[in-house]
Amino acid sequence: MTTTAESTGTGTSDVIATARRAREAAAALAPLPRTARDAALAAVADALEARAAEIVEANAQDIERARAAGTAAAIIDRLTLTPERIAAIAADVRDVVALPDPVGEVVRGSTLPNGLELRQVRVPLGVVGIIYEARPNVTVDAAALCLKSGNAVLLRGSSSAYSSNTALVAVLRDAVAGAGLPADAVQLVPGEGRESARELMRARGLVDVLIPRGGASLIQTVVRESTVPVIETGVGNCHVYIDELADLDMAVDILVNSKAQRPSVCNAAETVLVHAGIADRFLPRALAALTAAGVTVHGDEAWQKAGQDAGTEVVPATDADWETEYLSYDIAAAVVPDLDAAVAHIRRWTSGHTEAIVTRDTAAARRFVSLIDSTAVMVNASTRFTDGGQFGFGAEIGISTQKLHARGPMGLPELTSTKYVVTGDGHTRE
Amino acid sequence: MTTTAESTGTGTSDVIATARRAREAAAALAPLPRTARDAALAAVADALEARAAEIVEANAQDIERARAAGTAAAIIDRLTLTPERIAAIAADVRDVVALPDPVGEVVRGSTLPNGLELRQVRVPLGVVGIIYEARPNVTVDAAALCLKSGNAVLLRGSSSAYSSNTALVAVLRDAVAGAGLPADAVQLVPGEGRESARELMRARGLVDVLIPRGGASLIQTVVRESTVPVIETGVGNCHVYIDELADLDMAVDILVNSKAQRPSVCNAAETVLVHAGIADRFLPRALAALTAAGVTVHGDEAWQKAGQDAGTEVVPATDADWETEYLSYDIAAAVVPDLDAAVAHIRRWTSGHTEAIVTRDTAAARRFVSLIDSTAVMVNASTRFTDGGQFGFGAEIGISTQKLHARGPMGLPELTSTKYVVTGDGHTRE
Repeated sequence: MTTTAESTGTGTSDVIATARRAREAAAALAPLPRTARDAALAAVADALEARAAEIVEANAQDIERARAAGTAAAIIDRLTLTPERIAAIAADVRDVVALPDPVGEVVRGSTLPNGLELRQVRVPLGVVGIIYEARPNVTVDAAALCLKSGNAVLLRGSSSAYSSNTALVAVLRDAVAGAGLPADAVQLVPGEGRESARELMRARGLVDVLIPRGGASLIQTVVRESTVPVIETGVGNCHVYIDELADLDMAVDILVNSKAQRPSVCNAAETVLVHAGIADRFLPRALAALTAAGVTVHGDEAWQKAGQDAGTEVVPATDADWETEYLSYDIAAAVVPDLDAAVAHIRRWTSGHTEAIVTRDTAAARRFVSLIDSTAVMVNASTRFTDGGQFGFGAEIGISTQKLHARGPMGLPELTSTKYVVTGDGHTRE
Repeated sequence: MTTTAESTGTGTSDVIATARRAREAAAALAPLPRTARDAALAAVADALEARAAEIVEANAQDIERARAAGTAAAIIDRLTLTPERIAAIAADVRDVVALPDPVGEVVRGSTLPNGLELRQVRVPLGVVGIIYEARPNVTVDAAALCLKSGNAVLLRGSSSAYSSNTALVAVLRDAVAGAGLPADAVQLVPGEGRESARELMRARGLVDVLIPRGGASLIQTVVRESTVPVIETGVGNCHVYIDELADLDMAVDILVNSKAQRPSVCNAAETVLVHAGIADRFLPRALAALTAAGVTVHGDEAWQKAGQDAGTEVVPATDADWETEYLSYDIAAAVVPDLDAAVAHIRRWTSGHTEAIVTRDTAAARRFVSLIDSTAVMVNASTRFTDGGQFGFGAEIGISTQKLHARGPMGLPELTSTKYVVTGDGHTRE
């Protein structure tokens, strides 16, 4: 919570004024029932489709600027909105409408010995700030999840998507206001420069939490500079450990799936560790499968030797490889003497996202699970399953890799706090 | 979680070296079952009693220094340890042994459509830092709660209790080591100066959370300066609102109890707001009862007039009164036109700890509960009930007034994080 000095604020900038309006909107949103919030979201979905032409037109300006600046085709593709993509975004909003309401859930409750009725009830966090990169769909996704959970949202997107985001937020605000909710529940943070992001990070007392979504450098900047509480998301230096008693077919499948099914995402594997007892049998098969999937192996001496034997190039690995989140068709690879050595390697180098063990040995699985201190531990399953959608949460605002408040995929409950409601009939303390 | 650069650390000071040892100890503690942790706590309780003389002797040095420095008698009393007080502290440790184990609790679990078994399991946070003031009993309480929840603890007490804390921690470490746990699970942060506290606050990646316990100034310093995640505790500018339809006897009882039963604590009331419709009847009774309890009223014009009518002095209130946490026999007092004005006043000035309404009107109670955004809302009950012991949690490490991670009294579950354990039989993602 805030101290008074903080709530009254110290700055008078546009960003602070925006945050203050968000705070007012949050106060108005908090007591509204689900029906009011769901009606606003349904209106948002309809408006996105009805005003798709206007959004595409604004998006064209961003694309034009990106082309002029020589931006890579893959990034321009991520930036691009078409009527079809807008329809898909609207469909996602309708999915959010259908999700259970986290607000008002009684998390814990009891009647105390003195007859006081104690309830711990989920309430919105208040004002949620999202700092993100060039995907304009995040603008709508984040706003929808925040509105569903009763929060006001401050959106601070990339300057490269500024026209798109401005058009999207205009549509969102009109729809929200048309449904009778405060338009300021959804606001774009004004200004395109770094200074406005910095002001947002310093708006402690006005903004309840900041969630950075994007690359490691963005996330680290926010973690370092923000005085507003931050939920750290997404950096994934994930490991797959192949135990001595692994089923080798399963091990190859899980390794290749973890690395190569979609290498650009945070839950893709970046390092494979192999028990020395099966290295002779596993390394040739793994090398062949990884190579067939287009993956370059950065290996220790054992992997380099296996590469020589197989006539496959293995790049010699350095410490930099153990700590790198490649996000590409590359993997670091080492042979370890035993499970405890694998755990020690992981504890030394992991970003704490997801680690997998492949084994038929129940004792090894149990020991690995108990010793690994990461967001998710997979036993005989691909690292790629750490995901709000896969976990059945229906929506995901990001994957927290920190230990406080939320750890792992964050759905709607993670966008709430709680308060205690205590009811008596004149109870006083002796 | 930590990035690698952070876990490997940047400093080489004594504080950082201490934090590194805590991190190692935390890794060793995490997989231990409850029986091991409980046995260590039982050994701690026995050792405190067995070595009480040694602790009292060390405590005498702190008391001597405090007397020489002209410290107030009340503070010296808080600092003082006697064999009886040590026995009471040991009894508290035995109570912690008997509490349920938070570690390993399955918070959420399901079998996903593809057959993957998903479990969200409570795990220790890791390394918990406590920064606190002159009460040496906090040294043992905090260490016991951290050990029970599988965490290593870094204790940074007041320099005025340094001899006592050093003796207590020596006893704790010996007992913990004697029970086969790493002694470094309990450490005093070396150094007495501000620099060592500052280093602790900057040990991000080594320390998982810092919990400041003490006055508002200590807490604000930690919140402002720490790059380690902080759980903000304890500042309580609590309000009691007397609604138009209040039972006036009940209202007087709750008001006096909230203010005067123990004014020095964070859940004591600091402001009373009265609906204009009952001011004429309520103010004279409230003034008489507050005065009889030794409370000075700092009132608005309506309260000042009621004071003149009753021949009781009412100090004119200024904005400073609305924002002050007196922690004394003083209360700010205002008459408000209606419930919404009371809510607006509270939202403007509260520290977000506890607010109470006294009313017989169910609609008013419901509206107050839905509009107040504080840790606890009391309906027809004293603000003094916001307390881990009163709530039945069995133990309390502090009362969080922030919205992330924990809000309200923090017991053992609030000293944990969770991780996801996902079990398959070769599952890969399509």
